[in-house]
Amino acid sequence: MLHAITTTPIDPGYQLPQRGIKMLTKHLIIAFFCAAGLACGTAKAQTTIKIGVSVPSADHGWTGGIDFFAEESKKRLESLHRNLRIIVKTATGPSDQRKSLEELVATEQINALVILPYESGPLTDPVRMVKEKGIFVTVVDRALSDDTIQNLYVAGDNPGMGKIAARYLIDKLGGQGDIVVLRGLPTVIDDQRFDAFMELIKNTQIKVLASQYANWKRDDGFKVMQDFLTRFPKIDAVWAQDDDIALGVLDAIRKTKREKEMFVVGGGGMKEMIKRVQTKDAMVPIDIVYSPSMIANAIELTALHYTAKLPVNGTYILDSPLVTPENAAQYYFPDSPF
Amino acid sequence: MLHAITTTPIDPGYQLPQRGIKMLTKHLIIAFFCAAGLACGTAKAQTTIKIGVSVPSADHGWTGGIDFFAEESKKRLESLHRNLRIIVKTATGPSDQRKSLEELVATEQINALVILPYESGPLTDPVRMVKEKGIFVTVVDRALSDDTIQNLYVAGDNPGMGKIAARYLIDKLGGQGDIVVLRGLPTVIDDQRFDAFMELIKNTQIKVLASQYANWKRDDGFKVMQDFLTRFPKIDAVWAQDDDIALGVLDAIRKTKREKEMFVVGGGGMKEMIKRVQTKDAMVPIDIVYSPSMIANAIELTALHYTAKLPVNGTYILDSPLVTPENAAQYYFPDSPF
Repeated sequence: MLHAITTTPIDPGYQLPQRGIKMLTKHLIIAFFCAAGLACGTAKAQTTIKIGVSVPSADHGWTGGIDFFAEESKKRLESLHRNLRIIVKTATGPSDQRKSLEELVATEQINALVILPYESGPLTDPVRMVKEKGIFVTVVDRALSDDTIQNLYVAGDNPGMGKIAARYLIDKLGGQGDIVVLRGLPTVIDDQRFDAFMELIKNTQIKVLASQYANWKRDDGFKVMQDFLTRFPKIDAVWAQDDDIALGVLDAIRKTKREKEMFVVGGGGMKEMIKRVQTKDAMVPIDIVYSPSMIANAIELTALHYTAKLPVNGTYILDSPLVTPENAAQYYFPDSPF
Repeated sequence: MLHAITTTPIDPGYQLPQRGIKMLTKHLIIAFFCAAGLACGTAKAQTTIKIGVSVPSADHGWTGGIDFFAEESKKRLESLHRNLRIIVKTATGPSDQRKSLEELVATEQINALVILPYESGPLTDPVRMVKEKGIFVTVVDRALSDDTIQNLYVAGDNPGMGKIAARYLIDKLGGQGDIVVLRGLPTVIDDQRFDAFMELIKNTQIKVLASQYANWKRDDGFKVMQDFLTRFPKIDAVWAQDDDIALGVLDAIRKTKREKEMFVVGGGGMKEMIKRVQTKDAMVPIDIVYSPSMIANAIELTALHYTAKLPVNGTYILDSPLVTPENAAQYYFPDSPF
């Protein structure tokens, strides 16, 4: 990228001295950031950069974590960078989130948007309109239906979550049995988990009796599982793919006293579930980490685009490691009060 | 993740109040970072965190950029965080880099390593040994032969570079012709570029006359291309996959006055090449961005693991966009002196 231009014939043995390269590089870098529309003059550098953060309200444990980490990022970044303002807005559903976006653009006049879309489909066009106004767009977790809109995408390893769960179930059930599946919300990442899971299950003798959305909520997990328990006299295992849903599933199983019949695979890394894995609870044999702290990584990288003037466009997939009784200790937090 | 544990029977309509979730979350978070071995006491929080950065010395333009961005990151991060120290070491080859690692571990006693391996194979075991000492490992760009060693991997989209180049060549040549390929260094990312390229080429009438390593250097590009020009009387196109190599290739073609016979596809986003694309130089019809600023993203994320106490483990692939005459302006920097 940083080679000098010469108009004289080239000696192939010629090498730019290191200091020369660095000086040239510096000029290039400065020019780059000016070209990229970033602050490059002294006056401009003092302009306040506004980053809007649009996230679901704390409708379950995991989104509670999202809101917490978004607020923590705001505090940390605003205390480090005087010209940075982070505006966090929580939304109770897709249409409420669309309204938030309008406000962030029209009233707050944000430079960048970090969004965890409530659902993929209904938010795709609203975010496209934000992007078309020249606003930098970072999408987190649930994704949009059109992946060309985003500048940066940050999520956990959703196909990995599906694969890890499927591999475990196949192994544990010896390749045969009857299972039920509880899904999250109709989103790209829910499809990724489900498709990766089914891809491995389809070549086995494991039968998926039914699958149904439980909206990543404990009470919906309870209701859906109650229905499954009524409909199916024999269930060998449950793939709940989320720890909030899994808690509701476990409640429903306990209520019908069918605990000995089946086990449950969730996901998220909730302390309660990690503890059960660690103590070898037969109903919760494993968990898969999917930390809500990812919203902070997304806000930090977006801020970095302005504070360090770095290109950050791309895809950042955080690991979603498997938690077993053997390694659960490193994912469990003994000093936590709950 | 953050649901409370109750021992009483569950009412499925029950929802934790938001404030309760947040308080619980905060406790969990604090506990998490203690468990993860990060600073969690007042005394401990003042401990200096040392991040070692091991990169190739400026043996060509792109690595010159790498060294520049590493030093810029060091300045920025050390000025923002008093308890952070970044130690940058450049290496002239694989064995020199292995020695750097020993020094960073034994003398500097680093907490984390950010490494752009000179080559994949020879650095894999040395980095494994660093990791086994409990040091956090971030791998950038060229990758290791074993991808389970790293905590974090940061690179451009190497398979994407191969695909974009192949699609362009297939289209431009109408699916038939004779080409030569110049490769970089024997590394994972060079294989990714090459394999993705060949995967698309194999189903066409395009013949790859020869491929040879040119070590991502201009003078090696010149020598390899001189050899190709001697051996092959007809060459329709060159995939140099790197702008430093491409400059050497262009020198060799010019020297033999065969400019009208072929065109060259490089990669990296070097200013000189972007300019040629913009001015519709028939020999340099496109370029593909692969910015050395990626080392800064890697250092920043590694630092974030300590300064913001965030899990950052995962894979961060920066976009490698196609540069055409139509969009070249946004990748060209008119104020740059060269």
